[in-house]
Amino acid sequence: MPFATLSDIASLTSALPGFDEAACDAAALRQRRLTKSAGSLGRLEELALFMAGWRANPCPQIGQAQALIFAGNHGVCAQGVSPYPQEVTAQMVANFRAGGAAINRLCHAADAHMEVIPLDLDRPTADFTAGFAMTEGETLSALNRGAAAVDAGADVLILGEMGIGNSTVAAALAAALFGGPAAEWVGPGTGADAEGVRRKADVVEKGLARHRGLEPLHVLAAFGGREQAAICGAILAARAARIPVLLDGFICTAAASVLHGLDRRLLDHCLAGHVSAEPGHRRLLAALGKQAILDLDLRLGEGSGGALALGILRAALACHNQMATFAEAGISED
Amino acid sequence: MPFATLSDIASLTSALPGFDEAACDAAALRQRRLTKSAGSLGRLEELALFMAGWRANPCPQIGQAQALIFAGNHGVCAQGVSPYPQEVTAQMVANFRAGGAAINRLCHAADAHMEVIPLDLDRPTADFTAGFAMTEGETLSALNRGAAAVDAGADVLILGEMGIGNSTVAAALAAALFGGPAAEWVGPGTGADAEGVRRKADVVEKGLARHRGLEPLHVLAAFGGREQAAICGAILAARAARIPVLLDGFICTAAASVLHGLDRRLLDHCLAGHVSAEPGHRRLLAALGKQAILDLDLRLGEGSGGALALGILRAALACHNQMATFAEAGISED
Repeated sequence: MPFATLSDIASLTSALPGFDEAACDAAALRQRRLTKSAGSLGRLEELALFMAGWRANPCPQIGQAQALIFAGNHGVCAQGVSPYPQEVTAQMVANFRAGGAAINRLCHAADAHMEVIPLDLDRPTADFTAGFAMTEGETLSALNRGAAAVDAGADVLILGEMGIGNSTVAAALAAALFGGPAAEWVGPGTGADAEGVRRKADVVEKGLARHRGLEPLHVLAAFGGREQAAICGAILAARAARIPVLLDGFICTAAASVLHGLDRRLLDHCLAGHVSAEPGHRRLLAALGKQAILDLDLRLGEGSGGALALGILRAALACHNQMATFAEAGISED
Repeated sequence: MPFATLSDIASLTSALPGFDEAACDAAALRQRRLTKSAGSLGRLEELALFMAGWRANPCPQIGQAQALIFAGNHGVCAQGVSPYPQEVTAQMVANFRAGGAAINRLCHAADAHMEVIPLDLDRPTADFTAGFAMTEGETLSALNRGAAAVDAGADVLILGEMGIGNSTVAAALAAALFGGPAAEWVGPGTGADAEGVRRKADVVEKGLARHRGLEPLHVLAAFGGREQAAICGAILAARAARIPVLLDGFICTAAASVLHGLDRRLLDHCLAGHVSAEPGHRRLLAALGKQAILDLDLRLGEGSGGALALGILRAALACHNQMATFAEAGISED
C-alpha cells in the first residue's frame, strides 16, 4: 500500500497474514485452566481465542483501540432516496468533531480513540443510476485514504460511516454482490417511510440494471461511495498489521462485503459488532457467515454497534488474561 | 424491612414505589432532541427511559454500581445432581474474595463494586425430595440478609449466585411456579452430561410431587436455597430504594420468579442482563415477559451476564446524558 491500481488489490490479498493457530491453541489451553466450567463463558471465550489468533499472542491485550468514521456524499440523493438534505453529512461531521454524537459518547465509554474523516463532501459521487458513481481514480484514492488512516499500533479497529443516502448505496452493493431483488436489501435507513423504501428499491433496481456482471471492486466503483471504499482500504490495512476489526451495521458491512467478494478470507479478521434493525443487515451477516456480538435494535451507523461491542471484547480479554486458574485458586477441578 | 414473617412480604408489596412516568416522559422528550434519527439507538433508548423512570430522574446517572453475589449449599446434592463436590462452593467464595473469578474481572471492567456473601455454607439446606429445604425461619433469615446487603446509595444493583447443585433448585422453582414437566426446565448446568440431566429431571419431579399447591414464598422454602431467598430479599430492598436491578442467568431469574409469583409488578424494576445457554432460561424470560439485553451463550452464573450488561446500560446513559441536541449542534432536523 498505497494501491496504484484496482488489480493491485486483488493480487495483494494472498500475501496478507493469516490466523495464528498456535497462539489460538495456547489461548484455548489457558481457557480450560481458568476457574469456570469449560465453555461457560460462551462467546467471551470465542472472542478471546479470536483475538489470540489474530494478534498472534496467547494473552492478547487491548491497549489502544482506534475508531475511524468515514463520511461521504452521494449523487444518488438526486433520486430522493433520503428524507434528509445532504448538508446533514457535513453538519454531523462537525458534531463528531465537537463530541456531540452518539459515537463520541460510545467511544468515550469504551475507551476508543475516535477520528472522523470526511471524504470530499462538497464533491458527491455521481448518481449510480446514470453511470459509475466513482472513477477508478476516485475509488483508489478513497481506498488509500482509508488504508492510510489506520494506526498500525492499534490493537483493534472500529469502523463506521456517515453519509446521507448511503443505506441506498449499501443495498445496491449487497444486491450486486449477493444477488436477490432490491426489495430484499432496502429498508427504512435513517427514516424513510414505506413510500420512501419503495423508491429506494426502484432506484437500486435501476442501478442494478445499469451495472451488471462486474467484478467486486468495480461494483464498489459503480455504486460508491467514498466512505465505503475507505472502509475497504482500512480493513485491508488492518489485516496487514494483524489488527482485528469490529464492523458496525448494514452500511459498514455492505462495504466490507466487496472484499468478501474478492476473497472470502479477507474478512476473517473482522467481527460483526452487532446486527442492526435495518432488515438487510441480518441477511448480509448470514451471507458472510458472521454471528453478531450484539442485537440491540440499533440502526444508527457511525460505528455505534462496533463501539458498543468493544466493551464486550474488553470484558472477554479481562476474563481471559486476569482470571485465576484452578491450580492458582486451589479449586477441585472435577 | 427486616421482614418478621413471610406474610409480611406479601402485604408489603403494594407499598413499594412505582415507575415515575413524568421522569420517563421528560427523558423521552430529551431523546427526540438528540442528534440521531428517532429510535435509531434502539434498546439503548429504552434502557435510558427505564432508568429515568425508576430513578425518578430524566437524566439518570450511574455513579455507584453494586454487585452482590450470594452463595449457598444444597441438601439436594445428596441426590447426585452435580458432578462437582459441595466444597467447590466455598472454594469459589475464596476465589471471589481473592479476585480470581470471572465476576471479579467483569465487575472490574464495568466499574461495579462487588461483594460476595456466603450463606451458612457449612449448613446446607435440607434435601427437597425429602421435605422442605428451609424452615420459615431460615427462609426469612436469608431474605433479610439479602435485603440488608443492598446499599441504598447504589444507582444499579447486579445480582448473582454461586452454589453447587443450584441449577436443580432453580429448575424446581421454575417448574413449581410456572408449571410444565421438569424435563423442560432442567439443563446441563455447570456440566452435567445427558445422564446427569435426566437424573436432575427425576429429582425435580420427585420434589414437585412432594410439594404441591404452595404459595410462592412457600415454594421458595420448599426448594430453597438460601442464595435464592437472599436474591428475593435484595430485589425487594432495591425496589424500596428505587434501584434498578440487573438479573443474571437461569438461577438468578428463577429466584426472582418467586416475587413475580407474589405480584407480577415486583420485577418491573428488574432487567434481564442476558439470556443464558441453560435452556430453561429462555423459557423463564418469556414467562416473565422480559427481553434479555445480551445473548452471548454464557452459562456461568456468578452475576456474569448482569455485569456485562452494565456496560451496555452505562453506554445507554452516556448517549442519553451527553449527546448534543439538534439545536446545540445546529443540525437540520428534517
